[in-house]
Amino acid sequence: MVIQITRYNLKCRECGKEYPAEKRSVCDDCFGPVKVNFNIDEVRKTFTKSAISQRPRTLWRYFELLPVDDKNKIIDLGSSCTPLIHAKNLGKVLGLKNLYIKNDSINPTFSFKDRPVTVGITKAIEFDMKVISCASTGNLAASCGAHASKAGLECYVFVPDNIEHNKIAQIAAYGAKIISVNGIYDTANRLSNEAADRYGWAVLNVNIRPYYAEGEKTIAFETAEQLGWNLPDAVVVPIGSGGLLCEVEKAFTELRNLSFVPEHHVRFFGAQGEGADAVITAFKNKTNVIPIKNPKTIAKSIMFGSPGDGDHALKIMKETNGGGENPTDGEILEGIKLLAKTEGILTEPAGGTTIAALKRLTEAGSFDSGDKIVAYITGNGLKTQEAIPKANIRRIDPKIEFVDRILKEGI
Amino acid sequence: MVIQITRYNLKCRECGKEYPAEKRSVCDDCFGPVKVNFNIDEVRKTFTKSAISQRPRTLWRYFELLPVDDKNKIIDLGSSCTPLIHAKNLGKVLGLKNLYIKNDSINPTFSFKDRPVTVGITKAIEFDMKVISCASTGNLAASCGAHASKAGLECYVFVPDNIEHNKIAQIAAYGAKIISVNGIYDTANRLSNEAADRYGWAVLNVNIRPYYAEGEKTIAFETAEQLGWNLPDAVVVPIGSGGLLCEVEKAFTELRNLSFVPEHHVRFFGAQGEGADAVITAFKNKTNVIPIKNPKTIAKSIMFGSPGDGDHALKIMKETNGGGENPTDGEILEGIKLLAKTEGILTEPAGGTTIAALKRLTEAGSFDSGDKIVAYITGNGLKTQEAIPKANIRRIDPKIEFVDRILKEGI
Repeated sequence: MVIQITRYNLKCRECGKEYPAEKRSVCDDCFGPVKVNFNIDEVRKTFTKSAISQRPRTLWRYFELLPVDDKNKIIDLGSSCTPLIHAKNLGKVLGLKNLYIKNDSINPTFSFKDRPVTVGITKAIEFDMKVISCASTGNLAASCGAHASKAGLECYVFVPDNIEHNKIAQIAAYGAKIISVNGIYDTANRLSNEAADRYGWAVLNVNIRPYYAEGEKTIAFETAEQLGWNLPDAVVVPIGSGGLLCEVEKAFTELRNLSFVPEHHVRFFGAQGEGADAVITAFKNKTNVIPIKNPKTIAKSIMFGSPGDGDHALKIMKETNGGGENPTDGEILEGIKLLAKTEGILTEPAGGTTIAALKRLTEAGSFDSGDKIVAYITGNGLKTQEAIPKANIRRIDPKIEFVDRILKEGI
Repeated sequence: MVIQITRYNLKCRECGKEYPAEKRSVCDDCFGPVKVNFNIDEVRKTFTKSAISQRPRTLWRYFELLPVDDKNKIIDLGSSCTPLIHAKNLGKVLGLKNLYIKNDSINPTFSFKDRPVTVGITKAIEFDMKVISCASTGNLAASCGAHASKAGLECYVFVPDNIEHNKIAQIAAYGAKIISVNGIYDTANRLSNEAADRYGWAVLNVNIRPYYAEGEKTIAFETAEQLGWNLPDAVVVPIGSGGLLCEVEKAFTELRNLSFVPEHHVRFFGAQGEGADAVITAFKNKTNVIPIKNPKTIAKSIMFGSPGDGDHALKIMKETNGGGENPTDGEILEGIKLLAKTEGILTEPAGGTTIAALKRLTEAGSFDSGDKIVAYITGNGLKTQEAIPKANIRRIDPKIEFVDRILKEGI
């Protein structure tokens, strides 16, 4: 009998039971989430640093660590690797010499969600599924719509009915059909679960979730590659479902297992808005994650009452000697302004939350001033103009004397 | 006497008179525009394909063909090379097999203006200038504001008072001071000229223009590199001032002179919105460019009455056996929709103008179906939500029966 060695299968995160790489998101035995499990010896055969350096600058350069078989089926909007900026100006304000910003607001649909979606939709096509769907606070829905258009597939998205106007407009532009659900994200998410079962749709973050989630790892692969195949001392990650933080940790672990990076301890810090801060509260109070029934924060893209990966994210924060913070709406708005004015990066409130949490953590002495810290900016401020500071603007007739006056009086 | 060979100087585009690389934008003798003139033999010494392939993926990989001396003074937001997409879906609709979209909506401030601004501001700093300014329809002002923040310099921008709300909000977020001028772009531009003289500001597209403009070439360097160091058969470029079209031509010529690409004829096509179409009208009527006093089009970012580089752009269009089109507002909106629904790319009206012009040109038989055509998408649709199509949206209570009904009735 020939035993076929495959590059990846599925494995329950809780009980460790293994499954083939099938349409499955939950373990039959313990109902834990199943994750993609890579056979590192298989991966190693073609995945070398020199091979990667020759490949195009899209997240598909990390192909062997993504759960997809057929390169010809890849649906990709040509997402570039996003910049990792040494944030010297912001670092000076905060007293951090080696602060880096991973600017994931620069992506084809202007959030980090293009990473999981390109992987998830490609997998859905490998599974021969015909309708693409998701539950979303906006960023995922936009990415889903854009990729579905590129694939020529029908797309339905479930969103809570309070998301920002610009996000709705963007989703609509790609031709996606929007089901706006009276309730919060968690409500839309439950309805999308029912839809996945009832209609056989590929609901990317529900029944395709194990594959979809793997795309998020690429933000961390890029980070390590951009640091010269090194790991940082600490990361600050916004927490919505908690999935991103978990995937960054999974990515760093895979790179360690491949010996792509030196053994190096990374501390994980989370950021949530006050009022939608179940994970941070649990960390501070040393409890399990207790769902919040009516979450409320200006950072709507991470406004989850019941974060699906919250417990696992909390575990990582604890085990790595990390932590987290839950800034107020006012601090989040200040965070947006601070990042724009120091580094020229315009982010949405989720990014403001990350910066505000970083500020609190720094002030509380969580870091040494020389620590290499990477803060993840995952979405774009143009989508959330409600949260952009008021303009310094003066209207004048076109005469230079009026400009003279502005210079004298200020705007 | 030792004659020092320099990598670049300035040269009048009209009469050919040469100047050192000083603060100068106009020829003393003939008042023609001066352009940066590279000494190809100097450039060749370090600028090789293999050297470039090892450099970081920012536009600064083309350093030797950019008019900057001190790499340590570079102010850069980490702009990635933007995707060049083989637009198979849109190509199928139009009957073009080798249509490529250069998606420059993915840049740090979400338009192609980050290219000239990173070069222009770096040059202004080399000239030791302390205040950064520009005249702009919005995209340039945003980029200017973001880069000035990164540089820690004061920034004043002149904009016409009718630009889109989201663009104002974005500019403001970076902390730039906005002077909103009662009039059209040309009015704001004249006032910025006066300000450059009166206050000694670095008005990037006025007194720093020769250096600033060179940054735009990088969109064409990237195109050639992404095509495996080959030139396309035709390009379609939006025309505001006409500068971008001229710079794409200059870039291709420089690459030919370096023997980086095979000799290959490229046809140049321009796109303007009807009502702000001085260059296209001149092409169609076989006249010089006649300024339009009250330009009007939904594509505000290219709404110029008197395009500064219009005559030179027209010359290139004629000499390369190219052409141009001037779609209506309605066609521009259809162009936005078509690109979003086929390729998942959300662009502003200037990009819709490019797609609509491409459509007209294709239908008029300007291209063979196998021609390798690159269409330049220079700005982002999130900035101009006024122009985004209406949403396919239905609000429901969270019950699966309501989803059933949507599937039956449609949205």
